[in-house]
Amino acid sequence: MTTKVNLAEKLSRFDETWVPKIVGELNGQYVKVVKFEGAYVWHRHEHEDEMFMVLEGRMRIEFRDETIELSKGEFVIVPHGVEHRPVAPELAHVLLFEPATTRNTGTVNHDHTIEAEDLERL
Amino acid sequence: MTTKVNLAEKLSRFDETWVPKIVGELNGQYVKVVKFEGAYVWHRHEHEDEMFMVLEGRMRIEFRDETIELSKGEFVIVPHGVEHRPVAPELAHVLLFEPATTRNTGTVNHDHTIEAEDLERL
Repeated sequence: MTTKVNLAEKLSRFDETWVPKIVGELNGQYVKVVKFEGAYVWHRHEHEDEMFMVLEGRMRIEFRDETIELSKGEFVIVPHGVEHRPVAPELAHVLLFEPATTRNTGTVNHDHTIEAEDLERL
Repeated sequence: MTTKVNLAEKLSRFDETWVPKIVGELNGQYVKVVKFEGAYVWHRHEHEDEMFMVLEGRMRIEFRDETIELSKGEFVIVPHGVEHRPVAPELAHVLLFEPATTRNTGTVNHDHTIEAEDLERL
């Protein structure tokens, strides 16, 4: 549990987009890294708040009533129940903090859906 | 809750070391930023796992049986119950992710102690 994690090294291990990888676990929460490119699916998480922190590149989180632009070193917390859509105009590297129970597409079923228990650990 | 947070901007607002500032809250957890310089006090948290991620500079976490060196873009998760001491040879900017209940010096009382409910929000 006290192993050091280098985020860039973890991100160098995969190319696929929209597939979060678990890189840490604490207090029932996961730390994940993910690559985003393009537009994701609109969704919401019924119970889980979700944090998006940009590590490389830039992205935006679209809400139904506003859009938040994020650059490297910036984060936003999306409260549970709030519909949102991540969009990355170019490849972005993103860190996620969220409960271990979080399903990537929330209450929506989509080609991108991966059940929480099927996520890969890097 | 959907306000964007820029970590560098938050860190520019204070100079004091060893005083974590709350910059986000989700799922009963706090996201904090803190400046470290020098050696902290040995302590442990009875119930809370604690994540240290280096944003600028470098630091180390000393455990009783090993030391982990951390540079920018690296993190470590210290499991609850495990005695540890953060040390920063030079000024380091660090992100903490831990339960809202976490007391900065754990079960130890020290000049650095700040009760969780007294932490400043930036």
